[in-house]
Amino acid sequence: MKEKMVSMIRRIQEEICEMIQVLDESEYREDKWKRAEGGGGRSRVFSGGIVFEKAGVNISEVYGTLSEEAASNLAGGKIPSGKEREFFATGISLVLHPINPMAPTVHANYRYFERGDGATPGSWWFGGGADLTPSYLFTEDSSHFHRTYKDICDRHPVADYDEFKQNCDEYFFINHRNEHRGIGGIFFDGLDKIDKETCYTFVEECAEGFIDSYLPIIRRRKDMDFNSENKHWQRIRRGRYVEFNLVYDRGTKFGLTTNGRIESILMSLPETASWEYCHEPDVGSSEEEMLQALRFPKDWI
Amino acid sequence: MKEKMVSMIRRIQEEICEMIQVLDESEYREDKWKRAEGGGGRSRVFSGGIVFEKAGVNISEVYGTLSEEAASNLAGGKIPSGKEREFFATGISLVLHPINPMAPTVHANYRYFERGDGATPGSWWFGGGADLTPSYLFTEDSSHFHRTYKDICDRHPVADYDEFKQNCDEYFFINHRNEHRGIGGIFFDGLDKIDKETCYTFVEECAEGFIDSYLPIIRRRKDMDFNSENKHWQRIRRGRYVEFNLVYDRGTKFGLTTNGRIESILMSLPETASWEYCHEPDVGSSEEEMLQALRFPKDWI
Repeated sequence: MKEKMVSMIRRIQEEICEMIQVLDESEYREDKWKRAEGGGGRSRVFSGGIVFEKAGVNISEVYGTLSEEAASNLAGGKIPSGKEREFFATGISLVLHPINPMAPTVHANYRYFERGDGATPGSWWFGGGADLTPSYLFTEDSSHFHRTYKDICDRHPVADYDEFKQNCDEYFFINHRNEHRGIGGIFFDGLDKIDKETCYTFVEECAEGFIDSYLPIIRRRKDMDFNSENKHWQRIRRGRYVEFNLVYDRGTKFGLTTNGRIESILMSLPETASWEYCHEPDVGSSEEEMLQALRFPKDWI
Repeated sequence: MKEKMVSMIRRIQEEICEMIQVLDESEYREDKWKRAEGGGGRSRVFSGGIVFEKAGVNISEVYGTLSEEAASNLAGGKIPSGKEREFFATGISLVLHPINPMAPTVHANYRYFERGDGATPGSWWFGGGADLTPSYLFTEDSSHFHRTYKDICDRHPVADYDEFKQNCDEYFFINHRNEHRGIGGIFFDGLDKIDKETCYTFVEECAEGFIDSYLPIIRRRKDMDFNSENKHWQRIRRGRYVEFNLVYDRGTKFGLTTNGRIESILMSLPETASWEYCHEPDVGSSEEEMLQALRFPKDWI
């Protein structure tokens, strides 16, 4: 499963980067990095193109021995020893921040984890999901995005769209603002139902579904008219994206405290963000409509 | 002491806001706010003036019962119960972000805290300090800033400039970047030497010294020539300011987890910030000189 997953995420990274190259008329910068304790990754970041302000697609494959603390967190308080603390983790993570404020930011991430023998229940699991963060609300986009992932979930016995949609709403929540980061999608963790192969098939289809979920949206929005007020609002929303990622995101926190590659971890941050004191959108404006949707998650299907 | 401290910080807020009004040729927006659990504050924020992109001077006076999380953070992991979780806290906090990239951001903060009876040792303390965050290094500015606070420390038996300067370097450190936030200043916490009155006198003189420490610097820098490259570098540096405040700053974390007024807590964030993948200043540039000073703290006196 390790090799299978690694090979799949490499292929998906290629496919998504090809999609971006064509859309964005630009080239990525690639950085291969090694982790002193074992493993490494391949980061590809686009900037300066015609569609994306910044877009990153990273893969990594790391292994080694968990610290007692990390191992006990994973084992629910027990401190596993010896072989039980050996781990392997691989995943793909991407964040695309478009230039056009009518086009939504998108994030997706799929990962596989093994601890110890990787054979007994609880020693392996999958995690991941995809979520959309618009600055302006287009119901058509939200519905299409959710529909794509619901259809995939519905085809797999290990997946439950309603549960994964709710996980996503709960996870991407900026508690101090009482706002969700975006309009959601799906999110799952610790997925170890039935067997590895069955879970893998679902995760693979989700990863393969990314282009279907996002390409029609970015095509519709990338050339829409916008003005400086729209850009201003986008920068305010990007400030909130930064707040979520730096204050709450578990992946970012894990990376910052485990000597991960900083530039790959913080690739998720937008190129520009703004904080304006007491910014409040006008009543009845499309900015206010967006905010309402971030305050009260909806069923988009 | 509660009333004395409250009265002092009100006066200092007035004085500093008057200084900004004159320099910035602008007016502040004032918000008085109440905290449901007890107390409140008065925030004054400037934006749209000629010198500062954003400048906030906040005072607050809050009391109530600490959450288990907040109490255990203060007590170093132990969870105090009952009366030991009652608290009173008052303070002034200011952050000024100038428009001109040659002019440094400045932060200062003075606070008084009581937990439990407020009489026995360990149940009251003062904290605070002031620190400077330039985007471009001017030795003259760094020396003047440090000199002002060293002179104040040298006049007070409860203060030790060398110790407080080192605290400041250690506290304002962005661990994941291996960079300090700025060129330092002084920082002290848990100050409870001799008696309340003696500590208060020192804190009052620090707060009164703020204008002396910063006004000559902003006067020298506010009208200097700069270009778009300098502004770009300033936005990158402001991204690091955001990283520090959201990932490490204890005051921000305390505010975000104790239902503080979000807009007052996050007033410290700059109006604009930028994250560019793998940004590295050119060798021998003044941007690189700045970065070196942030990597290796110096004795500025």
